[in-house]
Amino acid sequence: MSRVVILSGSGSDAPWVDKIAMVLSDLDVAVIRRVGSAHRVPEHVLSLLRDYDQDETQTVFITVAGMSDALSGLSDANVVSPVIACPPASNSFGGLDVLSSLRTPPGVGPMTALIPANAALAAAKILGLADPGLRKRVAAFQASAAAKVMDADGAALLEQSQELGQADELA
Amino acid sequence: MSRVVILSGSGSDAPWVDKIAMVLSDLDVAVIRRVGSAHRVPEHVLSLLRDYDQDETQTVFITVAGMSDALSGLSDANVVSPVIACPPASNSFGGLDVLSSLRTPPGVGPMTALIPANAALAAAKILGLADPGLRKRVAAFQASAAAKVMDADGAALLEQSQELGQADELA
Amino acid sequence: MSRVVILSGSGSDAPWVDKIAMVLSDLDVAVIRRVGSAHRVPEHVLSLLRDYDQDETQTVFITVAGMSDALSGLSDANVVSPVIACPPASNSFGGLDVLSSLRTPPGVGPMTALIPANAALAAAKILGLADPGLRKRVAAFQASAAAKVMDADGAALLEQSQELGQADELA
Amino acid sequence: MSRVVILSGSGSDAPWVDKIAMVLSDLDVAVIRRVGSAHRVPEHVLSLLRDYDQDETQTVFITVAGMSDALSGLSDANVVSPVIACPPASNSFGGLDVLSSLRTPPGVGPMTALIPANAALAAAKILGLADPGLRKRVAAFQASAAAKVMDADGAALLEQSQELGQADELA
Amino acid sequence: MSRVVILSGSGSDAPWVDKIAMVLSDLDVAVIRRVGSAHRVPEHVLSLLRDYDQDETQTVFITVAGMSDALSGLSDANVVSPVIACPPASNSFGGLDVLSSLRTPPGVGPMTALIPANAALAAAKILGLADPGLRKRVAAFQASAAAKVMDADGAALLEQSQELGQADELA
Amino acid sequence: MSRVVILSGSGSDAPWVDKIAMVLSDLDVAVIRRVGSAHRVPEHVLSLLRDYDQDETQTVFITVAGMSDALSGLSDANVVSPVIACPPASNSFGGLDVLSSLRTPPGVGPMTALIPANAALAAAKILGLADPGLRKRVAAFQASAAAKVMDADGAALLEQSQELGQADELA
Amino acid sequence: MSRVVILSGSGSDAPWVDKIAMVLSDLDVAVIRRVGSAHRVPEHVLSLLRDYDQDETQTVFITVAGMSDALSGLSDANVVSPVIACPPASNSFGGLDVLSSLRTPPGVGPMTALIPANAALAAAKILGLADPGLRKRVAAFQASAAAKVMDADGAALLEQSQELGQADELA
Amino acid sequence: MSRVVILSGSGSDAPWVDKIAMVLSDLDVAVIRRVGSAHRVPEHVLSLLRDYDQDETQTVFITVAGMSDALSGLSDANVVSPVIACPPASNSFGGLDVLSSLRTPPGVGPMTALIPANAALAAAKILGLADPGLRKRVAAFQASAAAKVMDADGAALLEQSQELGQADELA
Repeated sequence: MSRVVILSGSGSDAPWVDKIAMVLSDLDVAVIRRVGSAHRVPEHVLSLLRDYDQDETQTVFITVAGMSDALSGLSDANVVSPVIACPPASNSFGGLDVLSSLRTPPGVGPMTALIPANAALAAAKILGLADPGLRKRVAAFQASAAAKVMDADGAALLEQSQELGQADELA
Repeated sequence: MSRVVILSGSGSDAPWVDKIAMVLSDLDVAVIRRVGSAHRVPEHVLSLLRDYDQDETQTVFITVAGMSDALSGLSDANVVSPVIACPPASNSFGGLDVLSSLRTPPGVGPMTALIPANAALAAAKILGLADPGLRKRVAAFQASAAAKVMDADGAALLEQSQELGQADELA
Repeated sequence: MSRVVILSGSGSDAPWVDKIAMVLSDLDVAVIRRVGSAHRVPEHVLSLLRDYDQDETQTVFITVAGMSDALSGLSDANVVSPVIACPPASNSFGGLDVLSSLRTPPGVGPMTALIPANAALAAAKILGLADPGLRKRVAAFQASAAAKVMDADGAALLEQSQELGQADELA
Repeated sequence: MSRVVILSGSGSDAPWVDKIAMVLSDLDVAVIRRVGSAHRVPEHVLSLLRDYDQDETQTVFITVAGMSDALSGLSDANVVSPVIACPPASNSFGGLDVLSSLRTPPGVGPMTALIPANAALAAAKILGLADPGLRKRVAAFQASAAAKVMDADGAALLEQSQELGQADELA
Repeated sequence: MSRVVILSGSGSDAPWVDKIAMVLSDLDVAVIRRVGSAHRVPEHVLSLLRDYDQDETQTVFITVAGMSDALSGLSDANVVSPVIACPPASNSFGGLDVLSSLRTPPGVGPMTALIPANAALAAAKILGLADPGLRKRVAAFQASAAAKVMDADGAALLEQSQELGQADELA
Repeated sequence: MSRVVILSGSGSDAPWVDKIAMVLSDLDVAVIRRVGSAHRVPEHVLSLLRDYDQDETQTVFITVAGMSDALSGLSDANVVSPVIACPPASNSFGGLDVLSSLRTPPGVGPMTALIPANAALAAAKILGLADPGLRKRVAAFQASAAAKVMDADGAALLEQSQELGQADELA
Repeated sequence: MSRVVILSGSGSDAPWVDKIAMVLSDLDVAVIRRVGSAHRVPEHVLSLLRDYDQDETQTVFITVAGMSDALSGLSDANVVSPVIACPPASNSFGGLDVLSSLRTPPGVGPMTALIPANAALAAAKILGLADPGLRKRVAAFQASAAAKVMDADGAALLEQSQELGQADELA
Repeated sequence: MSRVVILSGSGSDAPWVDKIAMVLSDLDVAVIRRVGSAHRVPEHVLSLLRDYDQDETQTVFITVAGMSDALSGLSDANVVSPVIACPPASNSFGGLDVLSSLRTPPGVGPMTALIPANAALAAAKILGLADPGLRKRVAAFQASAAAKVMDADGAALLEQSQELGQADELA
């Protein structure tokens, strides 16, 4: 058994959390959503982190906190399981709030993924290490992304050959 | 009675803390130095913050944490006393780690001062609200900074009048 | 008796000032609003700053000036009371106008808070040092912010248990 | 059995790779080092990635490529195992080369860790999900980082009590 | 015979590709459009690049890939023909995704042009080196841009002389 | 009669002021140096600005203030004569302190020149409007800068023809 | 007699030019508008610059060129009269196109003013050095800006005293 | 016959030009070095650009101008041959002077390459379109860069197998 715990810093992050959860659901990964602010209710955060970290189920945490992201570092330093920071996109200050997810000191090492789909995919890859079925679903997800590119190339080729054909007919 | 508690995130911040403490000492403000990482030992941080926050002595906290500053927000949200973030200067990423001190969410509001002397001065101004003697020392500190500018202007004027004098003598 | 003087650099900053004043009112802190540009009417600014700074009432200044913020530094250097810079948000130049509030020289040390609610809260914390009633209102304000997070977590848990329940019923 | 494959884009990245490998060795994690440029020898990179990805051993990839990091995205998109980008630090362009590690499109999701020690720790946490012994070593590593902070706080307290003692003796 | 191959990383880049192709058509340069992601289908990309690179026709590649641009470097390193990176405009992160096109290592040297019209013009200039007719069309294109400026200046002069005339009549 | 008044915010700006003054001296423009901080001694600054502004001599002000530049805006708003901001170069925060010189509100409009030589040259051009002799010295200064470029081109041509000559001799 | 020549790099800059011209008209300064691209028609630009620079009328040039501003440097280096760069505002790349106006080499020194009103005001100040009437109009313009601030402060005071009055009546 | 004309804006750019020229020499491409500032001697620049552009020899221009790069745009707009901007590296303002090379308006389209070796390689690729021998030398240059990576990977593998061997011997 395995799961992803998505911990967001505020109830207002729900739309961002939804995007992560949807991709995880597509990959048939179990998801738990929790809310807890590292600033306002740190003991609550620590308590729930440790509960999930210490039971039998393999867990990956995805932390979702905008502006100054204290949640990802606090989470990572207090669990043994992997933590992926996926801060909600923001245009303020040139998007550089992301530095607060990235610039944690030595020994406090959440990993950062910017896009909800990619945080979900990364979590699935981690849990897939011990789950051959999930591993296959990840591979299929990647193959589908690759196929979409190939299809676009095929369509481009077709369109151009038709244009040439029309040109020939006109000639 | 009043005091400033300087809380740094790591023992390696000591030189920066020294600079803050030195100005506070010059202003005859009592200083306590503590070390506690919001990431690694959050319960220790919360415990010492609340101890200082709840006793009789008026307290201003100055928080010193580089890179991603989780300490200032965590501190501010968990004490009723004022918190001043004074993150150590860094040239990495154009100095924009400071966003992690500034960009805290509503209700989590440390104030930021970039220079150790200014964090100390701001803390002294706060404690001076209830301490006329300290208020006078703050005023003297400001007057001394102003005098330094006036002295530089006096010296510039003198030098130029002497140059004119020498020019006259040569003529 | 205590108060917050919000000094803005232009009449056009009124909406931003309103947001600060509203939170201060919620915390039952007396507010005075003044307008004065450090560039255009510096003597007017100096005169009103000193008037408020020198009478009996404990005062915290909040300075509101956008673009290049000269007001916060000028204010801080000329009063003994604490000054909090709260420049109106701007997206121009990646929001880096805030550097003009932050980068004052040694001895000129306004503290910066980016969000109106946080500037108000910080001022309340400062005045609360000598006002146990205000201190309680600040604590209640913080508790309410924390409760909002806990409520969101409770709602998330409830929603997921209901989904599980529905799944059980369907099974 | 499990391992970390550190893939760097150039032989000149060896000092950065060393730092990652050293922490992994301290955590008793098996390390393989390979070199391959996504730009210059993409087929070589794809071939070695797939070899490691498809055999029996659980593998985490850490990709090390400076300037424009094409290696991390190329690696992540072509393996089912997790990929951690750990680009060498650079001050050019305000350190914003890191955007090339972070800004991969949907479905191409390496995770980014800025500091070698943190990339190593994150990889160890991932492999620890299926390895209780490694999980304990990660916990010990974290406890040691926390202890260092507590020691610094203890030393600060001791120093201050001694100063007070000396002051008492002098009095 | 000569041509420009526009290779985009995703089908969603088609509007940007259209703008490049339209200018090339105006200059009567043959255009081939292909789609291939350096991340997802690198072998497809390498295969088509080499096919175009090795046949008889003089070819300039224009690569179109947003976010982290791995395509331009991968393309340039694997063909002998010139490669021009023309990444789609983005406001995220202050537009600095462009660093991923620019910051390729020594020996991997796509050239960057930010605007579709300019990427097209640059490709036409390159192919014009061996094509006097194209060279004349490029010159005409430049002359037309210059004429537009001269016309605007003429209109400005005319308008002002008319205003003066009206002022005279009124006098 | 005309002059340039260089007003710096601190005695520590003297080396930067020297560079400006040296170019002005080369152009035979009279220079007065004064020191006055807009933050610390605003009334002193206002007093000296108005004194120079109101007497008979044509005056251009050059203001020199680092970090957050309040001096240039304060100066410009309180004199009728032109003000050129020439803030000392700094690498902190990517050099963006310069925004504090540039981003003054409507009606407060110092002009900015980044390099001491260019601030001096611009002031000389302004004073040259009413001083044909100075105008000639400015033209000579510009001609000398142009000649330096032509000399470098001549030297490059000579060197290459000599290399060709040597190659011929060797052949 | 004196005038301002506003030289824009493209006909599309007309709205920005209008804003500058309107303030100059309010100050009763003669304005000439011209269009000329430093890139596309450099000889045209040089020719018109020199014509205006060499006749009897005192001239200030205001150059208006967006994106990469070559016009301001080219203009400044080739006239003896002062040149003010006033590049149109842009949000692309965090507004940092302005560096192309600012970062000219030694001896090429246009002055930069960001806002149309301020470029106009600065030009008026320069021409006012030899024109007491214009000097008075500049002073009136500044006084009007100051009065606007004082009015806003008066209105704020009035509103607050009325609120107090209403509170008294209610009591 | 073909050649690269490297045009630098100042004699002080010679070391940067040397690096470009050295790689071109290694590729056996003829190089001409010229100096001409777009700001100071625009007519000289235009004259030499047109001379090279109009004779029989196939020419690629590489323009080298630091700070605000007006040279690359001016060059590109006035020749029919391709222009590659290769501005000298600078750490000032986060390296963003490069925007002045990149952000030219439609119809003015120099291509940008950041590294001297890459500007040289790109020029060689362009001239190689009509020169099979040069094309082979470019391919060899690329193959040598690829081989260096493969050698580093081989050395890494060897070192690790030796370490394993030593470990075996010790066992």
